[in-house]
Amino acid sequence: MRTYFDCIPCFVRQVLDSVRMTTDDEQIQEKVLREALYLGSKMDLSQSPPAMAQKIHRFIREITGVKDPYLEVKNRFNKLGLQMYPELKQQVETSADPLETAVRLAIAGNIIDFGVNSVIEQSQVEKAIAESLTEPLDMEAMEEFRDATSQAEDILYLGDNAGEIVFDRLLIEQLPYEKITFAVKGGPILNDATIEDAQIVGLTDIVNVIDNGSDAPGTILESCSEVFRRRFDKSDLIIAKGQGNFETLCDVDKNLIFMLKPKCVVLARHLGCEIGSLVLARANHSEFIERS
Amino acid sequence: MRTYFDCIPCFVRQVLDSVRMTTDDEQIQEKVLREALYLGSKMDLSQSPPAMAQKIHRFIREITGVKDPYLEVKNRFNKLGLQMYPELKQQVETSADPLETAVRLAIAGNIIDFGVNSVIEQSQVEKAIAESLTEPLDMEAMEEFRDATSQAEDILYLGDNAGEIVFDRLLIEQLPYEKITFAVKGGPILNDATIEDAQIVGLTDIVNVIDNGSDAPGTILESCSEVFRRRFDKSDLIIAKGQGNFETLCDVDKNLIFMLKPKCVVLARHLGCEIGSLVLARANHSEFIERS
Repeated sequence: MRTYFDCIPCFVRQVLDSVRMTTDDEQIQEKVLREALYLGSKMDLSQSPPAMAQKIHRFIREITGVKDPYLEVKNRFNKLGLQMYPELKQQVETSADPLETAVRLAIAGNIIDFGVNSVIEQSQVEKAIAESLTEPLDMEAMEEFRDATSQAEDILYLGDNAGEIVFDRLLIEQLPYEKITFAVKGGPILNDATIEDAQIVGLTDIVNVIDNGSDAPGTILESCSEVFRRRFDKSDLIIAKGQGNFETLCDVDKNLIFMLKPKCVVLARHLGCEIGSLVLARANHSEFIERS
Repeated sequence: MRTYFDCIPCFVRQVLDSVRMTTDDEQIQEKVLREALYLGSKMDLSQSPPAMAQKIHRFIREITGVKDPYLEVKNRFNKLGLQMYPELKQQVETSADPLETAVRLAIAGNIIDFGVNSVIEQSQVEKAIAESLTEPLDMEAMEEFRDATSQAEDILYLGDNAGEIVFDRLLIEQLPYEKITFAVKGGPILNDATIEDAQIVGLTDIVNVIDNGSDAPGTILESCSEVFRRRFDKSDLIIAKGQGNFETLCDVDKNLIFMLKPKCVVLARHLGCEIGSLVLARANHSEFIERS
């Protein structure tokens, strides 16, 4: 997905949020803001929004010397997810359709996204989880998901954020997980999950976890390691979580299923849905191809 | 008032709104957006937000060749104001305290501000007008306003937006208007009132109307004509309407009274009040001096 004009003010706001989270030094905040504006003035709008975010977040880490600005946030939401896990696990297993319930919860977990939101409260996560059980879900897409995951031989599951990956774990436990490889980011970027998060939430005990070798908040294939790209190529089904993975992969010609909660007007408009709704959709649906 | 970091994303959004209002040509929109980002990357944050807006709006007019992008909006709101005028005039005159009622209405009229808002509906203006009659107003400031306007010999009333100036007219009619000079902008900038608007709403029939010689969305004295600056200097009371006039004059050492509805978080925080509240306040109050 290209970067829309409306992404630009939002991008500037996101940079400000991020640098404030990283340092209280107003001189550094100003320097980062100016750099973001300068980069913005030259940016290639045919690239996806995460490409720009990748550049500026590298600059933030470089100038502040803080390697992982969202570490505390990531730990907090991993912990919250793990606290919620036992009850949700039971809820999934006792539900009429455990797979559908797990899909709903995994999408709901995508609310934990510090790229779009400046602040996320525990209550918002709990609300999203509770509401996801009754919110509309494309049931045709759900049946396609059921079929696709049972038929696929080699599934690559692209994770999004720390905390959220606990909800991915709930879903993975309902899938033929011996066929699944779970991918995390290659290095800290926003609150995106890295290998440490996968270990913390126990995903590494269940599935093979790899990192994609990239610090983009999405999956920009050219920015990923060759090892990851080979893994990506040979998978016959890719489950891609979150807005960043959608923005970077929606034009890629693979058997992709996206799961996300759209968190901004631009993406909601692009998808033709409401902000915060449960999106479960295949990439090769004509509506994506037309709109992309 | 200096430009806060939080003003920057909002400024970028405002530029996008403005250029979209001016032209449908996406190439021009992109060019303006890039120029705004570039200017932003170099901007002097010790200047007020309107200083930056002045620069970029000049660029928009230059690149699009559209001299007055908000002409239609200005005409629409002048018309709306004039439609509401007879009933409001009666309301003022039959109220227990006509001056207070007129002050409330004049502040409410400041909702018609296309710098902060992308879109304003007629219903929002009507709602602001209706609510202003019962909303909290600083009664101490109201008494100071009453005394100051009756004691002053030479009042300069700095208008803000087209449409809004109909509500200023209602107030001016309750004041000793022979002592009042009304100032408008020297050229088109956003939906700020110019001499044509003052003529349309009949202000020129009641008071002496001058223009300030500047195309900034506020009163940047260095940007104003010498004639205006002399008029500004010799006034013993200045009534300054709107957010732009506040942002550019709150640090100026004159007998100033501000009347506005704050329309953004940054200004509301600066003033220590709620967005949309009725602000009537003297500039030389210690809280302004401390915060500026």
